[in-house]
Amino acid sequence: MKNYTRSLRCINCGKISSLKPIYSCEMCGGVLEVTYDYKKFKKDHETIYNISLANKSSLLPIDINEEEPFPYFNTPLIKAKGIGLDVGTNNLYFKLEFNTLTGSFKDRPVYVGIKKAKEFGYQKVIVASSGNGASAVAAYATREGLESIVLVPATTPAAKVSQAYAYGAKVIKVEGPYSNAFNLAWQISQEEDVYNITTTFLNPYTIEGDKVVAYELIQNLKGNSPDYVVVPIGAGPLLVGIYNGFYENTLINEKQKIPHMIGVQSMGCNPIVKAFNEGKQHVTPEKSPDTIAGGIGDGLVGYSQDGTYTLNTIKDSEGIALEVSDKEIMHAKNLLASREGLYVETSSAASVAALIKHAKTHPFSSTSNIVIILTGHGLKESFGKNIEEEVPVISNNVEALKLLLKK
Amino acid sequence: MKNYTRSLRCINCGKISSLKPIYSCEMCGGVLEVTYDYKKFKKDHETIYNISLANKSSLLPIDINEEEPFPYFNTPLIKAKGIGLDVGTNNLYFKLEFNTLTGSFKDRPVYVGIKKAKEFGYQKVIVASSGNGASAVAAYATREGLESIVLVPATTPAAKVSQAYAYGAKVIKVEGPYSNAFNLAWQISQEEDVYNITTTFLNPYTIEGDKVVAYELIQNLKGNSPDYVVVPIGAGPLLVGIYNGFYENTLINEKQKIPHMIGVQSMGCNPIVKAFNEGKQHVTPEKSPDTIAGGIGDGLVGYSQDGTYTLNTIKDSEGIALEVSDKEIMHAKNLLASREGLYVETSSAASVAALIKHAKTHPFSSTSNIVIILTGHGLKESFGKNIEEEVPVISNNVEALKLLLKK
Repeated sequence: MKNYTRSLRCINCGKISSLKPIYSCEMCGGVLEVTYDYKKFKKDHETIYNISLANKSSLLPIDINEEEPFPYFNTPLIKAKGIGLDVGTNNLYFKLEFNTLTGSFKDRPVYVGIKKAKEFGYQKVIVASSGNGASAVAAYATREGLESIVLVPATTPAAKVSQAYAYGAKVIKVEGPYSNAFNLAWQISQEEDVYNITTTFLNPYTIEGDKVVAYELIQNLKGNSPDYVVVPIGAGPLLVGIYNGFYENTLINEKQKIPHMIGVQSMGCNPIVKAFNEGKQHVTPEKSPDTIAGGIGDGLVGYSQDGTYTLNTIKDSEGIALEVSDKEIMHAKNLLASREGLYVETSSAASVAALIKHAKTHPFSSTSNIVIILTGHGLKESFGKNIEEEVPVISNNVEALKLLLKK
Repeated sequence: MKNYTRSLRCINCGKISSLKPIYSCEMCGGVLEVTYDYKKFKKDHETIYNISLANKSSLLPIDINEEEPFPYFNTPLIKAKGIGLDVGTNNLYFKLEFNTLTGSFKDRPVYVGIKKAKEFGYQKVIVASSGNGASAVAAYATREGLESIVLVPATTPAAKVSQAYAYGAKVIKVEGPYSNAFNLAWQISQEEDVYNITTTFLNPYTIEGDKVVAYELIQNLKGNSPDYVVVPIGAGPLLVGIYNGFYENTLINEKQKIPHMIGVQSMGCNPIVKAFNEGKQHVTPEKSPDTIAGGIGDGLVGYSQDGTYTLNTIKDSEGIALEVSDKEIMHAKNLLASREGLYVETSSAASVAALIKHAKTHPFSSTSNIVIILTGHGLKESFGKNIEEEVPVISNNVEALKLLLKK
C-alpha cells in the first residue's frame, strides 16, 4: 500500500505546512488542503485507465485496513425509475450514500478524521454537527477506542441525537443555529487536548474521505464519469471532495472528464447560491437560517470562506448553484419514497427538488448522465405526518379488513 | 444468464408442482421449496471453486437485472473489536444486513417475491410483517409499479410504520400478536387477486433471496465458509435460507463445509428453542408472545410447521437453538453500540446476547470463525431511554460547555 501524501497547503496564500493537526493556515487563516505527489502517483499508475483501479489508499492521508470496508463502502448506484422522465434524461442515477454503518454520507470523511486523531495521539475528539456527523464521529470514535464530544443544534431530530448517544458519545445540544455549535467546538479544540473532526473544511483531512464517492462512481459507471453530480450543500465539503476525486481521475487519464457539480441549498439558507446568482467573489454568511432541511441549514457564520471555496469549485466545474423552497423539498421527498422506493432525509430530497425545478426551464439532454447523491436515510428523522391518524387499526377480523381494502 | 429452476417440492410429502403462485402443498399443506437442476448446475460450474463465483442468478428463481444491485447488496462483513474476546474466538464477524435500501435483511427475500408477483401478473401484493418486511414490500412494490397492502401488529414501532407508509403502501395495524396479521393476510390472498409475499415459509420464492447472504459470506471470507452462523429467528426463513446457500456451495465442491447454524429466540417467544431443548420432533406454537424483540416475536400460531422446518435445519447443520431474556438482549444492544459502534434493532442484539451467554459455559475455540447476522438498523425503532433527560442543552456559551465537559 503506497501513500502519496506530501503536505498541507493553504488554498488562499499557498503556504505549505507539514501534515499536522491544525485547522487553518498559520499565516493567513485560510482553508487547508492535503497535497499529494501527483507526479509520482501518475508515473506509478500510467498503465491503468481510471482511478477506481488505483490502490485503495493511494490518494488518502491514511493507510487503509484491507479487513475493513471503511471508507470504501461500495454504496449502490441505482437508476431512477420515474423521476428521470421529469428532468429530460434517461440516465438519472441515485448514489445511496445513506447505505453506510451509521446511515449517512458522513461515514467516509469521519473515518479518515478519526484515523488521523489516533495517529496524532489524541484520546478525545469533538465535532459540531447537524446530526449525521455526530453519529458518525460517535460510532468511529468508539470503534477506535476514543472518547467523543458531540455538539448538535438543539433542534436536531431525536433519532439522530439518540443514535449518537447510543454509541457512547457525550452529546450536548447547543441553542441557536448550527454556527453556534461550530464555534463552541472550535474554541474547545483550541484550548484543550481535543481533536476537532468537524467535517466542514475545518479539519483538512476529513474531506479526503469524500473523494471516495467519486472513485466509486467511476467504478459504478464502468470507468466513466457522469456529466453532472448533484449534491445538497451546507458548507459544501462533500461537493468539493467529490470534485477533487474526479479531478484526480483526470491526472491518470487526461481524456477523463470532471462532471459539472450542481450544489443545492434551501431558500431559507442559501449563502452560496446567493453569491453564485449575484456573481460575487465571496460568500456572505446567513445569520438566521430557516429551513426544514437541517442537514444543509448552515449559515457559515464565522467561516464563510468555506462557502467561498465551494462556490469556486462549482464555478471551476462549470456547474451551477440552485435553491429550492421547503415546500418543494417536501414534495420531492414524498415523490422519492412513493415513486422510487427511496426513503431519505429531508436534506437529500433538496437535490431532487432542485433538479426537477431546473429542468422545467433548462431540460437536460436525453443522454446526459446525472448522479444525485442521497446523503441520509429517512429513518434519521421523524416522519412529517402524524402516522397515528393516517394508519387504521383493526381487530383480528377479516371482514373489517375487507371493508378497509374496498375504500 | 442461466436459470436452473425446476419445480416446487413439498418438504413434507415430496409432491412436485410447477413454479406457480401457491403457498403450500396442494396435497398435504406442507411447506414448499424451489428445486433446481443441481446436476446440470454442477456440470456447468465444475471448473469453479465456490458458489460466489457462479453467475449471479444461477440459483435464484428470477433473472437478475445487472443494472441493479438487488438482491446482491454486498453488505459489509466486519470483524468484532471487543465483544469477540468474550466468546473465546479472535474471529468474530458481523454481517451488516441492515445495510440495504430499506435498512433490514428483508430486502433480499422481498425483492425476489416482488419480481415473482410481477412475473405472475399480479397488480397487488400483501404482506404480514413485524415491520421490516412491511417496509421492504412497500419499497420494492413501488419500484416495480405494484400496489401494496401491509399488515403489521398494532405495537409495531412508529419508525417502521412511517417508513412503509412513506413508500405508498396501504398500511393497516392489526391488534394482537403477529400471527393475527399473518392469518388475515393469508385469508385475503386466498380470496382476492392479491399475491402474498409474507416472508415466513408461506411464499416459497422469497426464502431463495436469503441464500444470497451465504453466497456473499463466502466471498467476504475469500472462498471459505464460517464455522458458525448466528441468526435471530421468528419462523426462521433467514436461517434456513442461509443454510441452503451454504448447502448449494457444497454441490460445487464437496470439500466446502456447511456452518453450524445457531438460531436465537427470546425467552418470551421461544417455540423453536423449547422443541430443540426438549428433543421434540415438532414445534408447538406460542400463543402469547411477550418480548421487546418484536422482529422475532412470532408465536407461529397456525403455521408451526414453519418452526419445525427451521428446527430440522438447525439439527441438520449440527447447530444449536439458544434463548435469552429481554434484559440480556438490551444489555447486548447497548454493548454493540457503545463498544463496537454498531447501532442495531433489538432483535439483532439477541444473537449477540445468546453468543456471550452460551460461551460462558461452552467457550468457542480461539480459531473458530463465527458470523453474527445483524438484521436491522437501530434507527428502525425508538431509543429505549428518554433522550431529553439524558442530553443537556446549553446556550451559546463556552464556559457552560467547559463546565459540562469537566463532569
